[in-house]
Amino acid sequence: MALALSLGRRGQGTCWPNPAVGCVIVQGGRIVGRGQTQPGGRPHAETEALAQAGAQARGATAYVSLEPCAHHGQTPPCAQALIDAGVARVVSPIEDSDPRVSGEGFEMLRRAGVTVETGLLSGTAARDHAGFLLRSEQGRPLVTLKLASSFDGRIATATGESQWITGPEARRVVHAMRARHDAVMIGAGTARADDPALTVRGMGVARQPVRVVVSRHLDLPLMGQLARSAREVPVWLCHGPTTDAERVKAWEGVGARLIPCALHGVQIDAADLLQQLGQAGLTRVFCEGGAALAASLIEADLVDQLIGFSAGLAIGAEGLPAIGALGLDRLADAPRFELAEQRRVGADLMHRWVRALPRAGVAG
Amino acid sequence: MALALSLGRRGQGTCWPNPAVGCVIVQGGRIVGRGQTQPGGRPHAETEALAQAGAQARGATAYVSLEPCAHHGQTPPCAQALIDAGVARVVSPIEDSDPRVSGEGFEMLRRAGVTVETGLLSGTAARDHAGFLLRSEQGRPLVTLKLASSFDGRIATATGESQWITGPEARRVVHAMRARHDAVMIGAGTARADDPALTVRGMGVARQPVRVVVSRHLDLPLMGQLARSAREVPVWLCHGPTTDAERVKAWEGVGARLIPCALHGVQIDAADLLQQLGQAGLTRVFCEGGAALAASLIEADLVDQLIGFSAGLAIGAEGLPAIGALGLDRLADAPRFELAEQRRVGADLMHRWVRALPRAGVAG
Repeated sequence: MALALSLGRRGQGTCWPNPAVGCVIVQGGRIVGRGQTQPGGRPHAETEALAQAGAQARGATAYVSLEPCAHHGQTPPCAQALIDAGVARVVSPIEDSDPRVSGEGFEMLRRAGVTVETGLLSGTAARDHAGFLLRSEQGRPLVTLKLASSFDGRIATATGESQWITGPEARRVVHAMRARHDAVMIGAGTARADDPALTVRGMGVARQPVRVVVSRHLDLPLMGQLARSAREVPVWLCHGPTTDAERVKAWEGVGARLIPCALHGVQIDAADLLQQLGQAGLTRVFCEGGAALAASLIEADLVDQLIGFSAGLAIGAEGLPAIGALGLDRLADAPRFELAEQRRVGADLMHRWVRALPRAGVAG
Repeated sequence: MALALSLGRRGQGTCWPNPAVGCVIVQGGRIVGRGQTQPGGRPHAETEALAQAGAQARGATAYVSLEPCAHHGQTPPCAQALIDAGVARVVSPIEDSDPRVSGEGFEMLRRAGVTVETGLLSGTAARDHAGFLLRSEQGRPLVTLKLASSFDGRIATATGESQWITGPEARRVVHAMRARHDAVMIGAGTARADDPALTVRGMGVARQPVRVVVSRHLDLPLMGQLARSAREVPVWLCHGPTTDAERVKAWEGVGARLIPCALHGVQIDAADLLQQLGQAGLTRVFCEGGAALAASLIEADLVDQLIGFSAGLAIGAEGLPAIGALGLDRLADAPRFELAEQRRVGADLMHRWVRALPRAGVAG
């Protein structure tokens, strides 16, 4: 099961809107087939693994990291393929919450006389498929917010100097993280200040993440790196409802996809933004700031994972903060995260936090 | 040697102005005596260990974590005591930079025919005795700056709410850290806002650290916890040169020690502050903020060790920053620290950084 999960994770960032699934087929204690969802979401992991196993799938056990699909989509249902191949037993940690599957895959297998076992490593599976599950349950992708800052939480000096606070090893780890997400997202201020490419470099990725820029007024440079490369790697611009039509046309002209979003006060509404991205198929979004976008996601309690890279330098109170104004009055109202991992990356400290469950007596 | 160093460290915070030394005497492969500098700085570690060893010290090897003293202070020289006891060999990592010792201890031993070996674990010894060595070389104590903040580097909400950002486990670790320092130091703002006791609680310490408050105008509450307990645990107030004489008298009246310091602009000069504290005998100072005092120490490059406790919550840009304005224009001017340790403490992240050596091509 652990191997199936690990194979599945390899596909993260490349399979959306499909889940990144892994499948291992075991016959007489020997692995006879392994597969993972292929870039673009097809073929499915089971198809790959069954093709490898061939006739040896008969009477075998299939470990699948998510419930096999039961519906005819662009591929025939995997549950049927497992039955047709003569698989005797399917071990799978969790149900697929997609309403077209949701228990139907397991049911189809059981009706055909296949033994179905669930629950094994279900915690890991729920984490691995969190983006896919969130999208089918809440309509939005999983959000990872990454902030690289000084020891005292500043992302630039008062004069705007920000390159480079963290070191080359941290930047390399960030590229690997981008590759595990369907999209990289930044705010307009960061796009203007840094003119980033936002691509994954030096990793040989099968599919580049979509570049998402959130800009109410689309006041972004048409001569920048994003505009120039929009035909090679997708650029999606999430803008407000009253954006200048000329700008929309100009960006469509360079190959960007335009996504109008609702406002919340004077800013793009974070909840609507993520619903739009979910509708567009994204399951995992990696947000790299800036301060205003980070604040609006945190304020709306839409950050599932928070990753800090802290450098060993102090910038002081005049520096630009990593997270903008949150309008908190009481500490008890501050969104809470649980420490999941901390380690040294080059000269910097990486710390990863995940959304905390509501505290007893505080929720509701 | 490692045992001698470890014994020595136990005395940190209790021996000032003396170094916290450890001594182990080994005869025929067996430990026959061990000692550490006692609270208040006397007896010395060697005296303790020799007393335990008795006649077995003859022909033995003494491991001492710092060069044995050679001068007649309030105790006779330890080098002489080792000679008188008939010790054959002394292993000690580093010289004592106190001008009254500085090689003289080793020299005295060698002249008496004792074999002297130096250099073993000298890095650890230099770190352990850094406060004592800094005081004798530069006249100032070692400074540890501790900052407990939210994920985004804030120590309180905009309305000043700060208790408790970090959890009980972190506070317990902070008490243990206080106990390893000669003094705990805060700024006047923190003293007014939190009315802290600044004592070490629940650790059974032999000697409470001195409480140092830096307050230019001495505008501190005379009814607070510090004032009320100043006769039990020392309170030292570092104030500006033009402080109101009534306030000075009132604080002397409750038992505080008053230390006038020079100004740098409108603030107490950090360099002079530390010189004064060094003259008063302190070798290790644990500063717990607030933002202005932290900034003045960092700006003057007087922070030797930076300890962060980060909690898993975001407070946002309106919150109070952990470090005040530093007046940095360029990132290259920011003081740099090297990551020495990172670990989970309860629900919080503890990260310890030490002063970085000047980068090649940057210094000078």
